[in-house]
Amino acid sequence: MNYRMIAKSIGNLLMVEAACMLPSFLVSLIYMESDLPAFAWSIALAMLGGFALTCLKARTPDLYARDGYAVVALGWVLMSVIGALPFLFSGAIPRPVDAVFESISGFTTTGATILRDIERLPHGILFWRSFTHWMGGMGVLVMMIAILPSVKANTIHILRAESPGPTPGKLVPKISQTAKILYAIYILLTLAETILLLLGGMPLYDALIHAFSTAGTGGFSNRNLSVAAYGSAYIEVVITLFMFLFGVNFTLYFIAFRRGGLRNALRDEELRYYFFIALAATLMIAVVNYGQVYRSPLLSLRHAAFQVSSVMTTTGFSTVDFNLWPVFSRLILLLLMFIGASAGSTGGGIKVVRSIVLLKTVQREITRINHPRAVRAIKINGHVVDEAVVSGVMAFFFFYILIFVSAVMVVALEGRDLITTVTSVVATINNVGPGLNAVGPMGNFAGFSPLSKIVLSLCMIIGRLEVYPVMLLFFPGFWKKGI
Amino acid sequence: MNYRMIAKSIGNLLMVEAACMLPSFLVSLIYMESDLPAFAWSIALAMLGGFALTCLKARTPDLYARDGYAVVALGWVLMSVIGALPFLFSGAIPRPVDAVFESISGFTTTGATILRDIERLPHGILFWRSFTHWMGGMGVLVMMIAILPSVKANTIHILRAESPGPTPGKLVPKISQTAKILYAIYILLTLAETILLLLGGMPLYDALIHAFSTAGTGGFSNRNLSVAAYGSAYIEVVITLFMFLFGVNFTLYFIAFRRGGLRNALRDEELRYYFFIALAATLMIAVVNYGQVYRSPLLSLRHAAFQVSSVMTTTGFSTVDFNLWPVFSRLILLLLMFIGASAGSTGGGIKVVRSIVLLKTVQREITRINHPRAVRAIKINGHVVDEAVVSGVMAFFFFYILIFVSAVMVVALEGRDLITTVTSVVATINNVGPGLNAVGPMGNFAGFSPLSKIVLSLCMIIGRLEVYPVMLLFFPGFWKKGI
Repeated sequence: MNYRMIAKSIGNLLMVEAACMLPSFLVSLIYMESDLPAFAWSIALAMLGGFALTCLKARTPDLYARDGYAVVALGWVLMSVIGALPFLFSGAIPRPVDAVFESISGFTTTGATILRDIERLPHGILFWRSFTHWMGGMGVLVMMIAILPSVKANTIHILRAESPGPTPGKLVPKISQTAKILYAIYILLTLAETILLLLGGMPLYDALIHAFSTAGTGGFSNRNLSVAAYGSAYIEVVITLFMFLFGVNFTLYFIAFRRGGLRNALRDEELRYYFFIALAATLMIAVVNYGQVYRSPLLSLRHAAFQVSSVMTTTGFSTVDFNLWPVFSRLILLLLMFIGASAGSTGGGIKVVRSIVLLKTVQREITRINHPRAVRAIKINGHVVDEAVVSGVMAFFFFYILIFVSAVMVVALEGRDLITTVTSVVATINNVGPGLNAVGPMGNFAGFSPLSKIVLSLCMIIGRLEVYPVMLLFFPGFWKKGI
Repeated sequence: MNYRMIAKSIGNLLMVEAACMLPSFLVSLIYMESDLPAFAWSIALAMLGGFALTCLKARTPDLYARDGYAVVALGWVLMSVIGALPFLFSGAIPRPVDAVFESISGFTTTGATILRDIERLPHGILFWRSFTHWMGGMGVLVMMIAILPSVKANTIHILRAESPGPTPGKLVPKISQTAKILYAIYILLTLAETILLLLGGMPLYDALIHAFSTAGTGGFSNRNLSVAAYGSAYIEVVITLFMFLFGVNFTLYFIAFRRGGLRNALRDEELRYYFFIALAATLMIAVVNYGQVYRSPLLSLRHAAFQVSSVMTTTGFSTVDFNLWPVFSRLILLLLMFIGASAGSTGGGIKVVRSIVLLKTVQREITRINHPRAVRAIKINGHVVDEAVVSGVMAFFFFYILIFVSAVMVVALEGRDLITTVTSVVATINNVGPGLNAVGPMGNFAGFSPLSKIVLSLCMIIGRLEVYPVMLLFFPGFWKKGI
């Protein structure tokens, strides 16, 4: 392990985080509210800490896969602690466990909150809350790679460890160039949504907050009623659309603009499954809800589309309390939370492409029984998927379920009702935000014990970083010297 | 496919079933109750139908893997329909869907019932209900192979398709001999339990019924309150112990008696995990329940041990309404339902050995990140597990979850509460019997719609036959001519 280089990278990360606090600082300057000194102190601390770490001298700039995992896992934990400082210092969230929970929920783009009344908070704090979504969505380390030319290390392993999906890779030969392209697409899409929201009559401040939260597929709003507060069909449709767009693999936007054009991008297998699943879920829920909950078929369709887009991309915005929907609709939503969005998007969950691989392994087993001597490779987009990746995806799925179950058992010790217990973990490990019952769209995570909050916070990071980086920290073998 | 040989084998199966109805017929003769003609007619029909099928002439007696799957899947469906006739003819269960549900629940050793008051039923019918558990536990086709010397076909594929576990095999070179040994162990253990129950003051009729249900890890009782009706700690301990014993791989009893003795058998990895999981679950539940539900630590331990043994072996007997237990204890039970018993036992669920393989794949993935160039085989009992088996287990796990989720969605259309909906499928696909809420230990499956009952019946057969035999029937490629 290259400990010094790991520390150096995390130092850079903290400096980037300090810089990212500036817009929120600016907002608090504009509104001249009580959170101004909180941001000043937080920025100073992040800067100092980051600078101190970057001063370390590393013998070699090489970072191997294990180092990449360590940078990402430790970096995310430290970044979340620093990100909690504005909440703490401003008094917006007085308890440290809660402040860190909220910060982790922000960076991991979960959107689960321990706040009961967000509208009473200062503007800068609410801005920071949603901005952490935006930072965490595409990845803060990816941002670091994009903007810091000083990072000379072999950063591909950092990019890989932070980007969701089984086989994230480079778009162009140079890694920093790849990171820049990803952020350019990200900024353009965020900008487009902000403008469309403004056109719908949303105030600039609200438009930015909702654009950040949509972009990161996070779900924090500045309104207690979330998107429902605006009561505007136009705004709901815009957000539905953009949630879906941010759940698409960003590589496809690159392909659509550069290589081969739109048609090539639309041929992507994961995109097709993603679209088909979302469409099928929307229609099924719309039909089941119609008559039982909503009198108008169009209204039923609109709410179904919004919630499916919100939950499948693991954003977590709500326009209705889906906790009151029929059991079939609620179960479909829970299922979508696990499937999640596309690999290489800002969304969470297991990811559509992994689900496809899993489906194809089942298909292969069936073929094996019918034709015992046939050897069949699994293909995605016509390309053979390496067997190591296939068995990695299968092991990932089981590991995911295992962590899910373990977390549920710890939270269960609290003795809350079964549905709250189980869905609190579903909503956090998949980075969705709202679950059912007490943690439903109209509920929050305030009532949990500190132990549960820590476990749920861990779930959020494990979900965002896709299990391995975080879990490796707990294996003693990981810390051994040498490669 | 060797259609004629498949039909012939199923014919033999029906004749065995007819013979298996004789003890119940005898019981109804002794008590001279209304179910006497029902058994007479059922036996006659099964005999005739079976005989007609065996009269078919097959060109070759060869049965390949696919044929084995077809015999087992079709055989089980037909056998369940025939097994439902006594319920129907006697008027004990007037609706065909219900009668078939109860029959499938019996043969698959699930123990889920649509009856609200079982104590009003005639003795023969209750005897038959529990005897189907006993037949289904070790496998009716295994019994056929054991007792019909006329079956000349290559029956290893039938044995494989009906026996639970990833790699069931032969104990001795001859298959019919293997089947005989398995049944000898089975009969001896059943006899031992019957005697011990008699010593506890249970009437012979009750003792036989509970021994059959324990042996098959089924769960049907002749008392509305299940084992709780006897209020005897001795009887509870005996049943706890025997449920656990019937959840052990029967090969180990063979090894203990023949090859290398007891020490060799106790060294088995699956047995150790099985024991450790049961012990850990018992202790955790006993601790959590103590104080919250039970005042005495010993009582808490006794109830915990009984329910853990009952649920993990997927028997489903109850001495208490665990639906009223704390959420932690209920979740542990749900988890045990999925893990299930050992491969090669009469229990259901995913099986302990598969869980071990899955755990080891996760371990391997972690090693792969730390040592990218290391190639590591997965070992059980010191022997390398073939990679095809490993990936088969992983695909099985995902397929299992997939079927589970699909079944939940169909049952959800009924609009019952979420916990009832989900646990009704958990309890049937894992062949446990009771779930939570409306299908809890004090509830039943009577209230479900015919559609749900059919889906849950399918789940029971899919669980018992471990997915593939049943699922293959739905794939058109399976029915193609040629091998």
